[in-house]
Amino acid sequence: MTAARAAATIGIMVTGVLLDIAGVLTEAGAALPGGPEAVARLREAGLPVGYLTNTTRKPKRRVVEDLAAAGYPVDPRAVTTPAAAAVEWLRDNGYAPHLLSHPDLNEDFPASGSDRPVAVVVGDAGEAFTYAALNAAFRHLADGAPFLALAANRVFSDADGVLSLDAGAFVAALDYASGTAPIVLGKPSRAFFDRAVESLGCDPGEVAMVGDDAEADVAGALRAGIAQAWLVRTGKYRDGDEDRVDPAPTGVVADIGEAVDRLLGGAG
Amino acid sequence: MTAARAAATIGIMVTGVLLDIAGVLTEAGAALPGGPEAVARLREAGLPVGYLTNTTRKPKRRVVEDLAAAGYPVDPRAVTTPAAAAVEWLRDNGYAPHLLSHPDLNEDFPASGSDRPVAVVVGDAGEAFTYAALNAAFRHLADGAPFLALAANRVFSDADGVLSLDAGAFVAALDYASGTAPIVLGKPSRAFFDRAVESLGCDPGEVAMVGDDAEADVAGALRAGIAQAWLVRTGKYRDGDEDRVDPAPTGVVADIGEAVDRLLGGAG
Repeated sequence: MTAARAAATIGIMVTGVLLDIAGVLTEAGAALPGGPEAVARLREAGLPVGYLTNTTRKPKRRVVEDLAAAGYPVDPRAVTTPAAAAVEWLRDNGYAPHLLSHPDLNEDFPASGSDRPVAVVVGDAGEAFTYAALNAAFRHLADGAPFLALAANRVFSDADGVLSLDAGAFVAALDYASGTAPIVLGKPSRAFFDRAVESLGCDPGEVAMVGDDAEADVAGALRAGIAQAWLVRTGKYRDGDEDRVDPAPTGVVADIGEAVDRLLGGAG
Repeated sequence: MTAARAAATIGIMVTGVLLDIAGVLTEAGAALPGGPEAVARLREAGLPVGYLTNTTRKPKRRVVEDLAAAGYPVDPRAVTTPAAAAVEWLRDNGYAPHLLSHPDLNEDFPASGSDRPVAVVVGDAGEAFTYAALNAAFRHLADGAPFLALAANRVFSDADGVLSLDAGAFVAALDYASGTAPIVLGKPSRAFFDRAVESLGCDPGEVAMVGDDAEADVAGALRAGIAQAWLVRTGKYRDGDEDRVDPAPTGVVADIGEAVDRLLGGAG
Protein backbone atom coordinates (compact mmCIF):
# COMPACT_ATOMS: atom_id res chain seq x y z
CA MET A 1 0.00 0.00 0.00
CA THR A 2 1.34 3.43 -0.83
CA ALA A 3 1.94 6.07 1.81
CA ALA A 4 -0.55 8.33 0.04
CA ARG A 5 -3.32 5.75 0.34
CA ALA A 6 -2.51 5.05 3.97
CA ALA A 7 -2.75 8.76 4.76
CA ALA A 8 -6.05 9.02 2.92
CA THR A 9 -7.69 6.09 4.69
CA ILE A 10 -6.30 7.03 8.10
CA GLY A 11 -7.67 10.54 7.64
CA ILE A 12 -11.30 9.47 7.18
CA MET A 13 -14.00 9.73 9.85
CA VAL A 14 -14.64 6.31 11.42
CA THR A 15 -18.24 5.86 12.58
CA GLY A 16 -18.17 2.17 13.47
CA VAL A 17 -15.67 -0.57 14.36
CA LEU A 18 -15.56 -4.31 13.61
CA LEU A 19 -13.46 -6.57 15.81
CA ASP A 20 -12.24 -10.10 15.29
CA ILE A 21 -12.45 -12.05 18.56
CA ALA A 22 -9.87 -14.84 19.00
CA GLY A 23 -6.34 -13.42 18.92
CA VAL A 24 -7.58 -9.83 19.14
CA LEU A 25 -9.80 -9.72 22.21
CA THR A 26 -9.04 -13.11 23.72
CA GLU A 27 -6.36 -15.81 23.76
CA ALA A 28 -7.18 -19.32 24.92
CA GLY A 29 -10.48 -17.95 26.26
CA ALA A 30 -9.06 -15.19 28.48
CA ALA A 31 -8.99 -11.46 27.69
CA LEU A 32 -5.78 -10.20 26.14
CA PRO A 33 -4.21 -7.47 28.32
CA GLY A 34 -5.92 -4.12 27.90
CA GLY A 35 -8.65 -5.56 25.70
CA PRO A 36 -11.78 -4.88 27.78
CA GLU A 37 -10.58 -1.32 28.52
CA ALA A 38 -9.91 -0.68 24.83
CA VAL A 39 -13.40 -1.83 23.78
CA ALA A 40 -14.95 0.23 26.57
CA ARG A 41 -13.14 3.32 25.21
CA LEU A 42 -14.67 2.74 21.76
CA ARG A 43 -18.13 2.65 23.35
CA GLU A 44 -17.46 5.73 25.44
CA ALA A 45 -16.51 7.49 22.21
CA GLY A 46 -19.97 6.63 20.90
CA LEU A 47 -18.79 4.19 18.22
CA PRO A 48 -20.95 1.14 17.54
CA VAL A 49 -18.87 -2.06 17.81
CA GLY A 50 -19.49 -5.32 15.93
CA TYR A 51 -17.81 -8.67 16.45
CA LEU A 52 -17.19 -11.09 13.62
CA THR A 53 -15.57 -14.42 14.09
CA ASN A 54 -14.69 -17.35 11.86
CA THR A 55 -14.55 -19.63 14.89
CA THR A 56 -16.85 -22.57 14.21
CA ARG A 57 -16.02 -24.77 17.18
CA LYS A 58 -18.86 -23.36 19.29
CA PRO A 59 -22.38 -22.00 18.77
CA LYS A 60 -23.15 -18.29 18.81
CA ARG A 61 -24.66 -18.62 22.28
CA ARG A 62 -21.29 -19.79 23.62
CA VAL A 63 -19.41 -17.09 21.69
CA VAL A 64 -21.50 -14.48 23.53
CA GLU A 65 -21.15 -16.22 26.91
CA ASP A 66 -17.39 -16.60 26.54
CA LEU A 67 -16.99 -12.95 25.57
CA ALA A 68 -18.94 -11.93 28.68
CA ALA A 69 -16.86 -14.23 30.87
CA ALA A 70 -13.67 -12.67 29.47
CA GLY A 71 -14.89 -9.17 30.30
CA TYR A 72 -16.61 -8.20 27.06
CA PRO A 73 -20.36 -7.84 27.59
CA VAL A 74 -21.93 -7.85 24.10
CA ASP A 75 -25.38 -7.80 22.54
CA PRO A 76 -25.83 -11.08 20.59
CA ARG A 77 -27.12 -9.04 17.63
CA ALA A 78 -23.67 -7.45 17.33
CA VAL A 79 -22.04 -10.85 16.77
CA THR A 80 -21.73 -12.19 13.20
CA THR A 81 -20.92 -15.88 12.71
CA PRO A 82 -20.50 -18.04 9.59
CA ALA A 83 -23.15 -20.50 10.83
CA ALA A 84 -25.84 -17.80 10.66
CA ALA A 85 -24.79 -17.05 7.07
CA ALA A 86 -24.95 -20.78 6.25
CA VAL A 87 -28.43 -21.22 7.72
CA GLU A 88 -29.64 -18.32 5.59
CA TRP A 89 -28.01 -19.76 2.44
CA LEU A 90 -29.55 -23.20 3.06
CA ARG A 91 -33.01 -21.70 3.59
CA ASP A 92 -32.78 -19.42 0.53
CA ASN A 93 -31.55 -22.22 -1.74
CA GLY A 94 -33.67 -25.09 -0.42
CA TYR A 95 -31.00 -27.43 0.96
CA ALA A 96 -30.54 -29.43 4.15
CA PRO A 97 -27.05 -29.42 5.69
CA HIS A 98 -24.66 -32.37 5.77
CA LEU A 99 -22.54 -30.97 8.61
CA LEU A 100 -18.83 -31.64 8.93
CA SER A 101 -18.10 -29.37 11.86
CA HIS A 102 -17.58 -29.45 15.59
CA PRO A 103 -20.54 -31.22 17.29
CA ASP A 104 -21.00 -28.16 19.52
CA LEU A 105 -22.01 -26.15 16.44
CA ASN A 106 -25.06 -28.31 15.75
CA GLU A 107 -27.40 -26.09 17.79
CA ASP A 108 -26.91 -23.24 15.30
CA PHE A 109 -28.48 -25.36 12.53
CA PRO A 110 -32.08 -26.50 12.12
CA ALA A 111 -32.82 -30.09 13.10
CA SER A 112 -32.27 -32.52 10.23
CA GLY A 113 -34.85 -34.91 8.87
CA SER A 114 -36.02 -32.80 5.96
CA ASP A 115 -36.35 -34.34 2.52
CA ARG A 116 -34.44 -31.51 0.89
CA PRO A 117 -31.30 -32.27 -1.10
CA VAL A 118 -28.08 -32.08 0.84
CA ALA A 119 -25.42 -29.37 0.84
CA VAL A 120 -22.08 -30.12 2.50
CA VAL A 121 -21.23 -27.59 5.22
CA VAL A 122 -17.64 -27.64 6.54
CA GLY A 123 -16.48 -25.87 9.67
CA ASP A 124 -13.53 -26.38 11.99
CA ALA A 125 -14.36 -29.88 13.14
CA GLY A 126 -11.11 -30.39 15.04
CA GLU A 127 -10.79 -34.01 16.16
CA ALA A 128 -14.03 -34.76 14.29
CA PHE A 129 -12.07 -34.43 11.01
CA THR A 130 -11.69 -38.20 10.70
CA TYR A 131 -11.03 -39.98 7.42
CA ALA A 132 -14.52 -41.49 7.52
CA ALA A 133 -16.22 -38.12 8.07
CA LEU A 134 -14.18 -36.42 5.35
CA ASN A 135 -14.86 -39.28 2.94
CA ALA A 136 -18.61 -39.13 3.62
CA ALA A 137 -18.58 -35.39 2.83
CA PHE A 138 -16.49 -36.06 -0.29
CA ARG A 139 -18.99 -38.63 -1.55
CA HIS A 140 -21.83 -36.10 -1.32
CA LEU A 141 -19.72 -33.60 -3.26
CA ALA A 142 -18.87 -36.23 -5.87
CA ASP A 143 -22.63 -36.75 -6.26
CA GLY A 144 -23.07 -33.05 -7.00
CA ALA A 145 -23.95 -31.54 -3.60
CA PRO A 146 -23.15 -27.82 -3.16
CA PHE A 147 -20.15 -27.07 -0.94
CA LEU A 148 -20.36 -24.43 1.78
CA ALA A 149 -17.22 -23.57 3.76
CA LEU A 150 -18.00 -21.77 7.01
CA ALA A 151 -14.43 -20.51 6.87
CA ALA A 152 -11.26 -21.16 4.90
CA ASN A 153 -8.66 -20.05 7.45
CA ARG A 154 -5.34 -21.81 7.10
CA VAL A 155 -4.35 -21.85 10.78
CA PHE A 156 -5.28 -20.68 14.22
CA SER A 157 -3.21 -20.10 17.35
CA ASP A 158 -3.93 -23.10 19.56
CA ALA A 159 -4.19 -23.15 23.36
CA ASP A 160 -0.45 -23.91 23.50
CA GLY A 161 0.28 -20.78 21.42
CA VAL A 162 1.46 -22.87 18.46
CA LEU A 163 -0.24 -22.68 15.08
CA SER A 164 -2.68 -25.50 14.29
CA LEU A 165 -4.63 -26.56 11.21
CA ASP A 166 -7.87 -24.64 10.75
CA ALA A 167 -10.91 -25.51 8.64
CA GLY A 168 -9.36 -24.17 5.43
CA ALA A 169 -6.96 -27.10 5.17
CA PHE A 170 -9.85 -29.56 5.09
CA VAL A 171 -11.83 -27.36 2.72
CA ALA A 172 -8.81 -27.45 0.40
CA ALA A 173 -8.67 -31.26 0.70
CA LEU A 174 -12.31 -31.66 -0.36
CA ASP A 175 -11.97 -29.05 -3.10
CA TYR A 176 -8.93 -30.90 -4.52
CA ALA A 177 -10.53 -34.34 -4.41
CA SER A 178 -14.00 -33.41 -5.66
CA GLY A 179 -13.25 -30.56 -8.04
CA THR A 180 -16.12 -28.64 -6.40
CA ALA A 181 -15.08 -25.13 -5.42
CA PRO A 182 -16.40 -24.04 -2.01
CA ILE A 183 -18.66 -21.08 -1.33
CA VAL A 184 -16.82 -19.45 1.59
CA LEU A 185 -19.31 -17.89 4.00
CA GLY A 186 -17.08 -16.43 6.76
CA LYS A 187 -14.26 -13.93 6.41
CA PRO A 188 -12.87 -12.97 3.87
CA SER A 189 -16.20 -13.26 2.03
CA ARG A 190 -17.54 -9.85 1.10
CA ALA A 191 -21.09 -10.88 2.00
CA PHE A 192 -19.92 -11.70 5.52
CA PHE A 193 -18.37 -8.28 6.01
CA ASP A 194 -21.51 -6.72 4.52
CA ARG A 195 -23.66 -8.46 7.17
CA ALA A 196 -21.40 -7.19 9.95
CA VAL A 197 -21.35 -3.62 8.59
CA GLU A 198 -25.16 -3.68 8.34
CA SER A 199 -25.36 -4.72 11.99
CA LEU A 200 -23.52 -1.48 12.83
CA GLY A 201 -25.87 0.67 10.75
CA CYS A 202 -22.84 2.30 9.11
CA ASP A 203 -21.48 2.85 5.61
CA PRO A 204 -18.49 0.52 4.91
CA GLY A 205 -16.49 3.58 3.83
CA GLU A 206 -16.60 4.80 7.43
CA VAL A 207 -15.86 1.49 9.21
CA ALA A 208 -12.59 0.17 10.62
CA MET A 209 -11.74 -3.52 11.14
CA VAL A 210 -9.18 -4.93 13.61
CA GLY A 211 -7.88 -8.47 13.23
CA ASP A 212 -4.90 -10.82 13.66
CA ASP A 213 -5.37 -12.71 10.35
CA ALA A 214 -3.70 -10.68 7.61
CA GLU A 215 -5.65 -12.42 4.85
CA ALA A 216 -9.12 -13.16 6.23
CA ASP A 217 -9.51 -10.15 8.55
CA VAL A 218 -7.44 -7.44 6.95
CA ALA A 219 -7.14 -7.95 3.20
CA GLY A 220 -10.70 -9.34 3.17
CA ALA A 221 -12.12 -6.26 4.90
CA LEU A 222 -10.34 -3.85 2.56
CA ARG A 223 -11.52 -5.82 -0.50
CA ALA A 224 -15.07 -5.57 0.92
CA GLY A 225 -14.83 -1.78 0.84
CA ILE A 226 -14.16 -1.26 4.54
CA ALA A 227 -12.16 1.95 5.02
CA GLN A 228 -9.43 0.81 7.40
CA ALA A 229 -8.10 -2.57 8.52
CA TRP A 230 -5.58 -2.79 11.33
CA LEU A 231 -3.43 -5.87 11.91
CA VAL A 232 -2.54 -6.66 15.54
CA ARG A 233 0.65 -8.49 16.52
CA THR A 234 -1.24 -10.81 18.89
CA GLY A 235 -2.94 -14.17 18.28
CA LYS A 236 -1.87 -15.92 15.09
CA TYR A 237 0.17 -12.94 13.85
CA ARG A 238 3.67 -13.89 12.71
CA ASP A 239 6.46 -11.52 11.62
CA GLY A 240 6.00 -10.34 8.07
CA ASP A 241 2.35 -11.40 7.67
CA GLU A 242 1.57 -7.84 6.50
CA ASP A 243 3.92 -8.30 3.53
CA ARG A 244 2.17 -11.47 2.35
CA VAL A 245 -1.26 -9.95 1.65
CA ASP A 246 -2.78 -7.58 -0.82
CA PRO A 247 -4.19 -5.09 -0.03
CA ALA A 248 -1.77 -4.40 2.82
CA PRO A 249 -3.08 -3.38 6.25
CA THR A 250 -3.84 0.27 7.03
CA GLY A 251 -1.32 -0.23 9.82
CA VAL A 252 0.26 -2.86 12.06
CA VAL A 253 -0.14 -2.30 15.80
CA ALA A 254 0.96 -4.09 18.95
CA ASP A 255 -2.52 -5.01 20.12
CA ILE A 256 -6.17 -3.98 20.41
CA GLY A 257 -5.16 -1.18 22.81
CA GLU A 258 -2.90 0.47 20.26
CA ALA A 259 -5.48 -0.11 17.52
CA VAL A 260 -8.05 1.83 19.54
CA ASP A 261 -5.46 4.58 20.20
CA ARG A 262 -5.07 4.97 16.46
CA LEU A 263 -8.79 4.87 15.77
CA LEU A 264 -9.52 7.52 18.39
CA GLY A 265 -6.66 9.71 17.16
CA GLY A 266 -4.64 9.40 20.32
CA ALA A 267 -1.46 8.29 18.56
CA GLY A 268 0.23 8.06 15.19
CA MET B 1 -5.00 -34.97 -29.01
CA THR B 2 -5.11 -34.74 -32.78
CA ALA B 3 -5.80 -37.75 -34.95
CA ALA B 4 -2.41 -37.25 -36.62
CA ARG B 5 -0.58 -37.54 -33.33
CA ALA B 6 -2.60 -40.57 -32.27
CA ALA B 7 -1.71 -42.31 -35.49
CA ALA B 8 1.96 -41.46 -35.09
CA THR B 9 2.22 -42.79 -31.54
CA ILE B 10 0.13 -45.87 -32.24
CA GLY B 11 2.35 -46.67 -35.19
CA ILE B 12 5.59 -46.87 -33.22
CA MET B 13 7.31 -50.08 -32.20
CA VAL B 14 6.60 -50.85 -28.53
CA THR B 15 9.47 -52.69 -26.83
CA GLY B 16 8.23 -52.57 -23.22
CA VAL B 17 5.02 -52.10 -21.26
CA LEU B 18 4.27 -50.43 -17.92
CA LEU B 19 1.11 -51.37 -16.04
CA ASP B 20 -0.69 -49.69 -13.19
CA ILE B 21 -1.94 -52.30 -10.72
CA ALA B 22 -5.13 -51.37 -8.83
CA GLY B 23 -8.01 -50.78 -11.21
CA VAL B 24 -6.09 -52.23 -14.18
CA LEU B 25 -4.94 -55.69 -13.06
CA THR B 26 -6.93 -56.01 -9.83
CA GLU B 27 -10.06 -54.72 -8.13
CA ALA B 28 -10.49 -55.12 -4.37
CA GLY B 29 -7.52 -57.50 -4.45
CA ALA B 30 -8.84 -59.95 -7.05
CA ALA B 31 -7.78 -60.15 -10.69
CA LEU B 32 -9.98 -58.25 -13.12
CA PRO B 33 -11.44 -60.60 -15.75
CA GLY B 34 -8.92 -61.48 -18.45
CA GLY B 35 -6.08 -59.71 -16.68
CA PRO B 36 -3.68 -62.60 -16.01
CA GLU B 37 -4.17 -63.91 -19.56
CA ALA B 38 -3.50 -60.46 -21.02
CA VAL B 39 -0.25 -60.04 -19.09
CA ALA B 40 0.81 -63.56 -20.06
CA ARG B 41 0.31 -62.63 -23.73
CA LEU B 42 2.64 -59.62 -23.35
CA ARG B 43 5.31 -61.91 -21.94
CA GLU B 44 4.79 -64.49 -24.65
CA ALA B 45 5.33 -61.69 -27.14
CA GLY B 46 8.73 -61.09 -25.53
CA LEU B 47 7.86 -57.68 -24.10
CA PRO B 48 9.33 -56.77 -20.70
CA VAL B 49 6.57 -55.71 -18.29
CA GLY B 50 6.93 -53.27 -15.38
CA TYR B 51 4.41 -52.50 -12.64
CA LEU B 52 4.16 -49.07 -11.10
CA THR B 53 1.72 -48.27 -8.36
CA ASN B 54 0.89 -45.21 -6.28
CA THR B 55 -0.69 -47.45 -3.65
CA THR B 56 0.94 -46.61 -0.32
CA ARG B 57 -1.25 -48.63 2.02
CA LYS B 58 1.05 -51.65 1.91
CA PRO B 59 4.77 -52.36 1.61
CA LYS B 60 6.34 -53.52 -1.62
CA ARG B 61 6.62 -57.05 -0.23
CA ARG B 62 2.82 -57.18 0.07
CA VAL B 63 2.31 -55.63 -3.37
CA VAL B 64 4.29 -58.51 -4.85
CA GLU B 65 2.55 -61.15 -2.70
CA ASP B 66 -0.90 -59.78 -3.55
CA LEU B 67 -0.10 -59.75 -7.27
CA ALA B 68 0.99 -63.38 -7.08
CA ALA B 69 -2.15 -64.34 -5.16
CA ALA B 70 -4.29 -62.66 -7.82
CA GLY B 71 -2.59 -64.63 -10.59
CA TYR B 72 0.20 -62.25 -11.57
CA PRO B 73 3.60 -63.75 -10.69
CA VAL B 74 6.10 -60.87 -10.83
CA ASP B 75 9.77 -60.24 -10.11
CA PRO B 76 10.00 -57.69 -7.26
CA ARG B 77 12.58 -55.77 -9.30
CA ALA B 78 9.87 -55.05 -11.88
CA VAL B 79 7.70 -53.25 -9.29
CA THR B 80 8.21 -49.51 -8.77
CA THR B 81 6.74 -47.92 -5.63
CA PRO B 82 6.79 -44.34 -4.29
CA ALA B 83 8.25 -45.50 -0.98
CA ALA B 84 11.43 -46.67 -2.72
CA ALA B 85 11.74 -43.26 -4.36
CA ALA B 86 11.25 -41.58 -0.98
CA VAL B 87 13.89 -43.68 0.74
CA GLU B 88 16.34 -42.72 -1.99
CA TRP B 89 15.46 -39.00 -1.68
CA LEU B 90 15.87 -39.06 2.11
CA ARG B 91 19.25 -40.77 1.83
CA ASP B 92 20.53 -38.43 -0.89
CA ASN B 93 19.40 -35.31 0.94
CA GLY B 94 20.26 -36.30 4.51
CA TYR B 95 16.83 -36.36 6.12
CA ALA B 96 14.96 -38.74 8.43
CA PRO B 97 11.28 -39.33 7.64
CA HIS B 98 8.33 -38.09 9.69
CA LEU B 99 5.86 -40.59 8.25
CA LEU B 100 2.19 -39.82 7.81
CA SER B 101 1.17 -42.97 6.00
CA HIS B 102 -0.44 -46.32 6.59
CA PRO B 103 1.34 -48.18 9.43
CA ASP B 104 1.81 -51.15 7.10
CA LEU B 105 4.15 -49.04 4.98
CA ASN B 106 6.68 -48.57 7.79
CA GLU B 107 8.75 -51.61 6.79
CA ASP B 108 9.72 -49.90 3.53
CA PHE B 109 11.51 -47.14 5.49
CA PRO B 110 14.69 -47.32 7.56
CA ALA B 111 14.21 -47.51 11.33
CA SER B 112 13.96 -44.08 12.93
CA GLY B 113 16.21 -42.81 15.69
CA SER B 114 18.67 -40.88 13.57
CA ASP B 115 19.65 -37.34 14.49
CA ARG B 116 19.05 -36.07 10.97
CA PRO B 117 16.57 -33.25 10.38
CA VAL B 118 13.06 -34.34 9.60
CA ALA B 119 11.25 -34.40 6.25
CA VAL B 120 7.49 -34.96 6.24
CA VAL B 121 6.48 -37.96 4.09
CA VAL B 122 2.77 -38.32 3.30
CA GLY B 123 1.17 -41.43 1.85
CA ASP B 124 -2.37 -42.75 1.85
CA ALA B 125 -2.79 -43.12 5.60
CA GLY B 126 -6.49 -44.01 5.44
CA GLU B 127 -7.99 -44.04 8.91
CA ALA B 128 -4.61 -42.87 10.27
CA PHE B 129 -5.35 -39.42 8.78
CA THR B 130 -6.51 -38.07 12.13
CA TYR B 131 -6.56 -34.38 13.02
CA ALA B 132 -3.73 -34.93 15.51
CA ALA B 133 -1.53 -36.72 12.96
CA LEU B 134 -2.16 -34.13 10.27
CA ASN B 135 -1.50 -31.30 12.72
CA ALA B 136 1.79 -32.87 13.83
CA ALA B 137 2.89 -33.08 10.19
CA PHE B 138 1.75 -29.49 9.62
CA ARG B 139 3.82 -28.25 12.54
CA HIS B 140 6.98 -29.81 11.07
CA LEU B 141 6.22 -28.12 7.75
CA ALA B 142 5.61 -24.79 9.50
CA ASP B 143 9.07 -25.21 11.03
CA GLY B 144 10.59 -25.56 7.57
CA ALA B 145 10.71 -29.33 7.04
CA PRO B 146 10.73 -30.52 3.40
CA PHE B 147 7.47 -32.05 2.18
CA LEU B 148 7.48 -35.35 0.25
CA ALA B 149 4.20 -36.67 -1.14
CA LEU B 150 4.37 -40.36 -2.01
CA ALA B 151 1.41 -39.68 -4.29
CA ALA B 152 -1.06 -36.91 -4.97
CA ASN B 153 -3.96 -38.96 -6.35
CA ARG B 154 -7.35 -37.38 -5.77
CA VAL B 155 -9.39 -40.56 -5.36
CA PHE B 156 -9.30 -44.31 -5.58
CA SER B 157 -12.02 -46.89 -6.17
CA ASP B 158 -12.74 -48.35 -2.76
CA ALA B 159 -13.66 -51.96 -1.95
CA ASP B 160 -17.34 -51.00 -2.35
CA GLY B 161 -16.61 -49.68 -5.87
CA VAL B 162 -17.33 -46.09 -4.81
CA LEU B 163 -14.68 -43.39 -5.06
CA SER B 164 -12.87 -42.51 -1.84
CA LEU B 165 -10.39 -39.82 -0.81
CA ASP B 166 -6.81 -40.67 -1.69
CA ALA B 167 -3.57 -39.19 -0.34
CA GLY B 168 -3.71 -36.16 -2.64
CA ALA B 169 -6.55 -34.61 -0.68
CA PHE B 170 -4.45 -34.59 2.48
CA VAL B 171 -1.37 -33.42 0.61
CA ALA B 172 -3.48 -30.49 -0.64
CA ALA B 173 -4.61 -29.76 2.93
CA LEU B 174 -1.03 -29.56 4.22
CA ASP B 175 0.11 -27.57 1.19
CA TYR B 176 -2.71 -25.04 1.73
CA ALA B 177 -2.09 -24.63 5.46
CA SER B 178 1.70 -24.54 5.41
CA GLY B 179 2.42 -22.83 2.12
CA THR B 180 5.02 -25.58 1.47
CA ALA B 181 4.61 -27.14 -1.97
CA PRO B 182 5.06 -30.93 -1.98
CA ILE B 183 7.65 -32.87 -3.94
CA VAL B 184 5.47 -35.59 -5.51
CA LEU B 185 7.41 -38.85 -5.80
CA GLY B 186 4.88 -41.26 -7.33
CA LYS B 187 2.97 -40.89 -10.57
CA PRO B 188 2.67 -38.42 -12.33
CA SER B 189 6.26 -37.45 -11.40
CA ARG B 190 8.58 -37.77 -14.37
CA ALA B 191 11.34 -39.20 -12.17
CA PHE B 192 9.00 -42.00 -11.12
CA PHE B 193 8.24 -42.97 -14.71
CA ASP B 194 11.97 -42.72 -15.48
CA ARG B 195 12.71 -45.28 -12.73
CA ALA B 196 10.09 -47.65 -14.12
CA VAL B 197 11.31 -47.28 -17.71
CA GLU B 198 14.87 -47.95 -16.55
CA SER B 199 13.70 -51.18 -14.89
CA LEU B 200 12.52 -52.32 -18.32
CA GLY B 201 15.82 -51.50 -19.99
CA CYS B 202 13.92 -49.66 -22.73
CA ASP B 203 13.87 -46.20 -24.26
CA PRO B 204 10.78 -44.22 -23.09
CA GLY B 205 9.97 -43.48 -26.72
CA GLU B 206 9.28 -47.20 -27.23
CA VAL B 207 7.27 -47.84 -24.05
CA ALA B 208 3.50 -48.02 -23.54
CA MET B 209 1.68 -47.36 -20.25
CA VAL B 210 -1.76 -48.69 -19.25
CA GLY B 211 -3.70 -47.10 -16.39
CA ASP B 212 -7.12 -46.19 -15.01
CA ASP B 213 -6.14 -42.72 -13.70
CA ALA B 214 -6.35 -40.27 -16.58
CA GLU B 215 -4.13 -37.71 -14.87
CA ALA B 216 -1.53 -39.66 -12.88
CA ASP B 217 -1.17 -42.70 -15.16
CA VAL B 218 -1.94 -41.40 -18.61
CA ALA B 219 -1.19 -37.68 -18.89
CA GLY B 220 1.76 -38.15 -16.53
CA ALA B 221 3.27 -40.92 -18.66
CA LEU B 222 2.92 -38.92 -21.88
CA ARG B 223 4.48 -35.85 -20.23
CA ALA B 224 7.38 -38.09 -19.13
CA GLY B 225 8.09 -38.94 -22.77
CA ILE B 226 6.46 -42.35 -22.81
CA ALA B 227 5.25 -43.13 -26.31
CA GLN B 228 1.72 -44.40 -25.67
CA ALA B 229 -0.63 -44.26 -22.70
CA TRP B 230 -3.89 -46.23 -22.76
CA LEU B 231 -6.78 -45.46 -20.42
CA VAL B 232 -8.89 -48.43 -19.28
CA ARG B 233 -12.57 -48.11 -18.36
CA THR B 234 -12.10 -50.20 -15.19
CA GLY B 235 -11.13 -49.17 -11.64
CA LYS B 236 -11.56 -45.48 -10.89
CA TYR B 237 -12.36 -44.58 -14.52
CA ARG B 238 -15.47 -42.42 -14.87
CA ASP B 239 -17.14 -41.32 -18.12
CA GLY B 240 -15.36 -38.42 -19.72
CA ASP B 241 -12.12 -38.67 -17.71
CA GLU B 242 -10.21 -38.67 -21.00
CA ASP B 243 -11.57 -35.20 -21.81
CA ARG B 244 -10.36 -33.72 -18.55
CA VAL B 245 -6.63 -34.28 -19.04
CA ASP B 246 -3.91 -32.93 -21.25
CA PRO B 247 -2.25 -34.67 -23.01
CA ALA B 248 -5.19 -36.92 -23.87
CA PRO B 249 -4.78 -40.73 -23.85
CA THR B 250 -3.47 -42.54 -26.89
CA GLY B 251 -6.74 -44.42 -26.68
CA VAL B 252 -9.52 -45.45 -24.31
CA VAL B 253 -10.16 -49.19 -24.04
CA ALA B 254 -12.54 -51.43 -22.13
CA ASP B 255 -9.91 -53.15 -20.02
CA ILE B 256 -6.40 -54.57 -19.86
CA GLY B 257 -7.39 -57.28 -22.34
CA GLU B 258 -8.31 -54.75 -25.02
CA ALA B 259 -5.22 -52.69 -24.20
CA VAL B 260 -3.02 -55.70 -24.90
CA ASP B 261 -4.95 -56.39 -28.11
CA ARG B 262 -4.07 -52.90 -29.27
CA LEU B 263 -0.45 -53.14 -28.18
CA LEU B 264 0.06 -56.43 -29.97
CA GLY B 265 -1.67 -55.15 -33.09
CA GLY B 266 -4.58 -57.52 -32.86
CA ALA B 267 -7.19 -54.78 -33.11
CA GLY B 268 -7.66 -51.09 -33.97
